Amino acid sequence: MTKELEFYFDFISPYAYLAHKKIQSLPSSIRTSYKPILLGGLHNLEGITAPAFIKSKLKNMINDCNLVAKKFNFNFKWNDKFPLNSLNIMRGYFSVNSTVKDQYVNTMFDAYWKNNLDITDEKILITLLKDCKIDPDQFFETIKEQMIKDKLKEATKDAHKKGIFGAPTFMINNKIFWGQDRLEYALDEYSS
Amino acid sequence: MTKELEFYFDFISPYAYLAHKKIQSLPSSIRTSYKPILLGGLHNLEGITAPAFIKSKLKNMINDCNLVAKKFNFNFKWNDKFPLNSLNIMRGYFSVNSTVKDQYVNTMFDAYWKNNLDITDEKILITLLKDCKIDPDQFFETIKEQMIKDKLKEATKDAHKKGIFGAPTFMINNKIFWGQDRLEYALDEYSS
Repeated sequence: MTKELEFYFDFISPYAYLAHKKIQSLPSSIRTSYKPILLGGLHNLEGITAPAFIKSKLKNMINDCNLVAKKFNFNFKWNDKFPLNSLNIMRGYFSVNSTVKDQYVNTMFDAYWKNNLDITDEKILITLLKDCKIDPDQFFETIKEQMIKDKLKEATKDAHKKGIFGAPTFMINNKIFWGQDRLEYALDEYSS
Repeated sequence: MTKELEFYFDFISPYAYLAHKKIQSLPSSIRTSYKPILLGGLHNLEGITAPAFIKSKLKNMINDCNLVAKKFNFNFKWNDKFPLNSLNIMRGYFSVNSTVKDQYVNTMFDAYWKNNLDITDEKILITLLKDCKIDPDQFFETIKEQMIKDKLKEATKDAHKKGIFGAPTFMINNKIFWGQDRLEYALDEYSS
């Protein structure tokens, strides 16, 4: 039986980036499906205040992400402008062609959490899109479409209905595993 | 150089229990100092809503604690009456004789998170105290004293001043490590 590991992410989450890096080094036998959601929207639906908005939690998160990255030898740099709004690039996930989706995810995650770039700056975003062979004009056109906006909204609502309340979240066998620390636990489902 | 691992805890926290169990199996060369705080007070000082009061987070916490306990082979049982108020037994930590403090900690943690007991029930608490050779009358007398109340308050304020915002928290070399998952990271300080 094929087991699919679902990975709920938002580029805004540094822990989602660390999880993404871990996923990249999994054996190819583990099929991972990327599930974009809007973290802010999910938090609103559940009445959660993100750690980004609690001083001591934010401070701890910066330190903690650096520690995890160091332990796993990931190239990680806290984004000076965190929390940069990820709405456009999350909508973009639904608009870009499936052939470039993987590269799009890598490029946007790296831009935010490795290269310390301002992904809300149009000029920077245009360069990143060109790196992915995505036509910027078409990109900016498409992410304004109601259908694309609705897709992200629906995906977020669906995740919330499943009981998901944060990112990164892994889902396998209808079980929820929250936090990059729990990838290992989710993978245990393959052997159970 | 002796390094002291500080462990900030409240009996109310299931993750503090799991951390306590991990600490119990550390080599004796690692000196751990138990630092009682009132988790609710700490959350109030920082404006944090505990996961116990967010439906999806609570559900996840129950599942997650069971998973961690299973992985580490700890005897763990979610307390049916969570969140049982731990104020009296936290104050008690300051009132009991130093010779019985270790046993007191073990007994109260086990009562809450292994034996599924209602530690707010006076009859049950009396039995637990007797197990620790603590005189119940004296215990109930002392925890009402202003000095004891103030000690817990001060300990909580002091922790907050240090930047601590949750439990369990480990502190070593003036660095904060939040969550039972981070004991391993805190211990890395011994080798650095």
